Amino acid sequence: MTDRRIYIGTSVTAPNDEVAAQNRRAFEERNLLAVNVMSSPGSGKTTLIEAMAGVLRDRMAVIVGDVQTRRDAERIEATGCPVHQIETGGACHLDARRVAVAMKQLDLPSLDCRIVVIENVGNLVCPASFDLGEHMKAALLSPPEGDDKVLKYPALFTRITALIITKLDLLPHMEFDVERVVRECASLNDDFETFKLSARTGEGVGEFCEFLLANQSALTA
Amino acid sequence: MTDRRIYIGTSVTAPNDEVAAQNRRAFEERNLLAVNVMSSPGSGKTTLIEAMAGVLRDRMAVIVGDVQTRRDAERIEATGCPVHQIETGGACHLDARRVAVAMKQLDLPSLDCRIVVIENVGNLVCPASFDLGEHMKAALLSPPEGDDKVLKYPALFTRITALIITKLDLLPHMEFDVERVVRECASLNDDFETFKLSARTGEGVGEFCEFLLANQSALTA
Repeated sequence: MTDRRIYIGTSVTAPNDEVAAQNRRAFEERNLLAVNVMSSPGSGKTTLIEAMAGVLRDRMAVIVGDVQTRRDAERIEATGCPVHQIETGGACHLDARRVAVAMKQLDLPSLDCRIVVIENVGNLVCPASFDLGEHMKAALLSPPEGDDKVLKYPALFTRITALIITKLDLLPHMEFDVERVVRECASLNDDFETFKLSARTGEGVGEFCEFLLANQSALTA
Repeated sequence: MTDRRIYIGTSVTAPNDEVAAQNRRAFEERNLLAVNVMSSPGSGKTTLIEAMAGVLRDRMAVIVGDVQTRRDAERIEATGCPVHQIETGGACHLDARRVAVAMKQLDLPSLDCRIVVIENVGNLVCPASFDLGEHMKAALLSPPEGDDKVLKYPALFTRITALIITKLDLLPHMEFDVERVVRECASLNDDFETFKLSARTGEGVGEFCEFLLANQSALTA
């Protein structure tokens, strides 16, 4: 019988945090800004990344996590953007170790990009607790999901730097109070920017890309 | 230093499964059918339950799980339906022990209902792995989430008895192939029924309620 001891008092995410710090240093050595993109399934993470590829072109690389299937990776590959898929095989979030492996596979030194987008598993709960080595977390929320989600999933909205309201083109068709979402996020978090965009029409996507590029410049200043 | 031993070889969900079996027996002693309702955040679980309350009235009681806030419970309470809220305080799914506590709080013997609806935390990944003592699992999927979700989240769709396509009123406004969803679910699961409904307009809600009542009758036959 194997005997394993758990020493109470050590954070369960401590080993993850060490690898995350290594990832962050590796990104910075290449002057790369990493953004961890999180949302419910179907909020439009992959569609946003497709639209960003049209703006950022070879300045962006993507690491994409999915529980199962290569569907998202294939969509992003079709844009011509360098992409590496992490299939979590049941796990409900990415962790720093999986991202470290993906970074090697992407072969960052060979790329001439500025931004690495990490598309997390579709889930508003678990991904929020894991540092992947990113410089900022972004959360997507779309009108069909409802304007009551910020306070229901506070762990995520407390930690984000970018609040992205997606599917803006659906706003006329449903009841969704953007101001309520922003106000409730501000009640948890005093340091985030709000972006309103439609990845389908392209409206607002450029502004988010500019924000990332400005943060990448600040990194190297 | 506390010394805790983990005996490798025992399923990590075994203690949960024991409590789930007790819950199931307790439901059956009262001739109650329990249904575990799961989906992404914002698919419309609470809105469906509100609509079901209009059909089932005092034949339904509800246990509602949320990471944080009493928002869903308050909406269901407003229908007059008996409801007990489980606030998971960060946990990404319900478990059988939390449901057992909620069952006591609901005081099932005092109620004259037939159906207990357990609204799980909004999450397509983690809730799928935990037996709560229910008789059937139901998954909601709405057109804005996309028709590619079944194979991306197979753990859930493999286990369901009811596949519920919600927000049917939005179908004309977006690209969503219902047949693809049903076909991909059938590739994983050979024993589920499909329901297409709009909780907002009420279309199809009665059929789902009838399905639950028929299953409840079969329980006591």
